[in-house]
Amino acid sequence: MPPPQSHSSISPLTTFLIVCGFLVALFPSLFHTVVWSPYYYAFPDTAQRNPTSVLCRSPDICVSGSTMSWYQKTLTLPSRSRGSYLITDTITKELPELKNYKVGLLTLFIQHTSCALSLNENWDEDVRADMSDALDRIVPEDKKGGLYRHDAEGSDDMPAHVKSALVGASVTIPITNGRLATGTWQGIWYLEFRASKHARRVVATIQGEKM
Amino acid sequence: MPPPQSHSSISPLTTFLIVCGFLVALFPSLFHTVVWSPYYYAFPDTAQRNPTSVLCRSPDICVSGSTMSWYQKTLTLPSRSRGSYLITDTITKELPELKNYKVGLLTLFIQHTSCALSLNENWDEDVRADMSDALDRIVPEDKKGGLYRHDAEGSDDMPAHVKSALVGASVTIPITNGRLATGTWQGIWYLEFRASKHARRVVATIQGEKM
Amino acid sequence: MPPPQSHSSISPLTTFLIVCGFLVALFPSLFHTVVWSPYYYAFPDTAQRNPTSVLCRSPDICVSGSTMSWYQKTLTLPSRSRGSYLITDTITKELPELKNYKVGLLTLFIQHTSCALSLNENWDEDVRADMSDALDRIVPEDKKGGLYRHDAEGSDDMPAHVKSALVGASVTIPITNGRLATGTWQGIWYLEFRASKHARRVVATIQGEKM
Repeated sequence: MPPPQSHSSISPLTTFLIVCGFLVALFPSLFHTVVWSPYYYAFPDTAQRNPTSVLCRSPDICVSGSTMSWYQKTLTLPSRSRGSYLITDTITKELPELKNYKVGLLTLFIQHTSCALSLNENWDEDVRADMSDALDRIVPEDKKGGLYRHDAEGSDDMPAHVKSALVGASVTIPITNGRLATGTWQGIWYLEFRASKHARRVVATIQGEKM
Repeated sequence: MPPPQSHSSISPLTTFLIVCGFLVALFPSLFHTVVWSPYYYAFPDTAQRNPTSVLCRSPDICVSGSTMSWYQKTLTLPSRSRGSYLITDTITKELPELKNYKVGLLTLFIQHTSCALSLNENWDEDVRADMSDALDRIVPEDKKGGLYRHDAEGSDDMPAHVKSALVGASVTIPITNGRLATGTWQGIWYLEFRASKHARRVVATIQGEKM
Repeated sequence: MPPPQSHSSISPLTTFLIVCGFLVALFPSLFHTVVWSPYYYAFPDTAQRNPTSVLCRSPDICVSGSTMSWYQKTLTLPSRSRGSYLITDTITKELPELKNYKVGLLTLFIQHTSCALSLNENWDEDVRADMSDALDRIVPEDKKGGLYRHDAEGSDDMPAHVKSALVGASVTIPITNGRLATGTWQGIWYLEFRASKHARRVVATIQGEKM
């Protein structure tokens, strides 16, 4: 009776051990967790120390130890006519995601060529009024004619383009522990150079390492 | 006859099952794919939802779910004498890699101190001519002598350095779905401040999350 | 005697093979290394070619092939009164981490609104003196009164804010093979616009792909 004999040739214990072996083999991360646990117990910072380590709950499901992340959002600023405006609160309210970033950068980019973004004094309104006036003196409107070729959209248009080149279309601000790392007196400014009201779009890009 | 008996003690079926078990154990990702497939079928967005997940075809070959990537290239702009030039097409032609990025930033950095990069109006050539003239009025050349100490390279040199500080050596532009997220009327400008022709090098750095 | 028979039914060789099988199954990365080694021998660049690959020494311990990294540090510049200062050496000495980055970006951000960072000529001190004088002509102090509303901190304060908006609070510089990819004549400038000495804080953020 060789067939019945071979069927009875593996004891229940052996079968149990083989099945256990397969189960462990099928979940190697469990096995490695057990095997490595004394090491990680002795050196608890090992995983965190390597910023590029990838932790795996199973061979298929891993999570990068350094959670690099990008976030992008287009927002529209409240319509304004010529002037300098503090928009720090508008920006931080629109971007609650900032608080998730341990370290990173926020880049604000205004998609227009007759306004600008900048960083400047966040306390005294006079600074904002003085700024607009000072820029008008640096890039004057064409009162007598002859200063600018481009005047299709009005006498305030070409000076607006020049101010935009001088001040710039974007600001880049570091993020530290979930907050913008601006100085005590530093705020985000939106400078509108056209006389009439315009609604301006800003592309906000957050990149960094999440907490 | 213990040896022959033990040789016949494992039936072909048992041997087949043990071999199958080993094969499955050797390819745990296959096993996990089968085990987790109902879950992923029910929640198809799970993998994409976690930007830091790493997908593994085998324990050795994994691909990060969030494919962070850097690309850098140095390019030389066509030689130009003093003026403002629209270079959006030059840049996008040199950087076909842009289309691979779902979200990111392009940073253009000009390696010289008497020219500049900016973003401005991309339609009317008059804006470019007016810009160069306006900057000449803001930072005039030294006609009578006495304005600048530094004139070793000619009277157009020091004003070029000042304009370079005002306009800036770099621009940072968001990338969205493989395209520069510039506004409708916004183009990339190269402003040459020296009178004679110069070939200027630009370091283009693309960073972001690939599609 | 079924029990003793079943105990003797698996030969030592079979037991050895089963144990070996389990050992291999428990270290699938070893198995895959052996299986894939001819392929990697034939195509040695495969791992490096894919910037998003993750290499695993075990299913639990993986290292991303593209080692994205962030580094941030706040530093204080030496106190200076009004003038333009070359700080390239100060910055690179404070940031030895730069040399670890194969490709990346350095963003310097000054946390104040009456000074600025810029990139400009790194050789002739006269350029720095001329720059400060030229900016004084562009944004003059208020000699007669009437130019500025904001004068609480002195007549040099409001012009400093305007210069800060024109020149900018931050610079972004590409990193290539562990070095700043600045041009031959390009240096990092700190421009102080206040008459009295100030100690200015700069947030340095390095991001990129490590070597």
